[in-house]
Amino acid sequence: MTVKSEIEEGLGFTPQFGADGLITAVVTDAKSGDVLMVAYMNAEAVAKTIASGEAWYYSRSRKKLWKKGETSGHVQHVVELRVDCDQDALWLKVEQAGEGACHTGRRSCFYRAVPLGQSGAVTLEFRNADRTFDPGAVYGGVASKPGR
Amino acid sequence: MTVKSEIEEGLGFTPQFGADGLITAVVTDAKSGDVLMVAYMNAEAVAKTIASGEAWYYSRSRKKLWKKGETSGHVQHVVELRVDCDQDALWLKVEQAGEGACHTGRRSCFYRAVPLGQSGAVTLEFRNADRTFDPGAVYGGVASKPGR
Repeated sequence: MTVKSEIEEGLGFTPQFGADGLITAVVTDAKSGDVLMVAYMNAEAVAKTIASGEAWYYSRSRKKLWKKGETSGHVQHVVELRVDCDQDALWLKVEQAGEGACHTGRRSCFYRAVPLGQSGAVTLEFRNADRTFDPGAVYGGVASKPGR
Repeated sequence: MTVKSEIEEGLGFTPQFGADGLITAVVTDAKSGDVLMVAYMNAEAVAKTIASGEAWYYSRSRKKLWKKGETSGHVQHVVELRVDCDQDALWLKVEQAGEGACHTGRRSCFYRAVPLGQSGAVTLEFRNADRTFDPGAVYGGVASKPGR
């Protein structure tokens, strides 16, 4: 186990995987800065991403390693990879190939806003929710979400 | 349980908390777009954030609700709150009060980069790692990381 000061201030990359063997990965568009998606990586996905410069994740639903774009062609070229203070989260700045990162056909998975200043039941509002590609065509009509 | 199509395409806000009762929250600077931190919320933190427009989280290490800035004064005013396709991640665009979001004294928790195109042991590189505030002064010399 690496000590806290080394994890926070050192130059050794020692990703702190959770009990499930995964680390959270935040993916932003290198140009717009928008958050495209949140995904998870196991040690192999981290290693493959570093070695190849393209994003690999671990699918919690399918329980397998997953290269982003392997089905859709929408690969993510990693422009920069960062790790946070306690090394339990990664930030990928990517160039997103194709029209979008979200399996629903949108550029970003975050296409709905939660209005603030209220309590009780909340009604979402669409934001930049136009589809940029046809998920049925891209994923061959498979309804299940790849990679989750 | 809400059906998948409603979760993805509906306007009902039904955050999908994990087995630990938490949902992942990505926090970006509303101006720069930089990812400031990754944190976690329980249902109460989500409700308080929506109602107040200021960021509340759940500390996994301290096992308690936590208002960002309650010790440091570095509160986060939420400019926009978004939810992702399967409603298991939140994105907060915030105006960060004070000099930074990270307990180490930096503006962002992501102050180290992981070089790409290599395999084996990885040496990190500092990025924008200058301290913008003195964590010892702000947190009263408490070495432990608030909120994690």
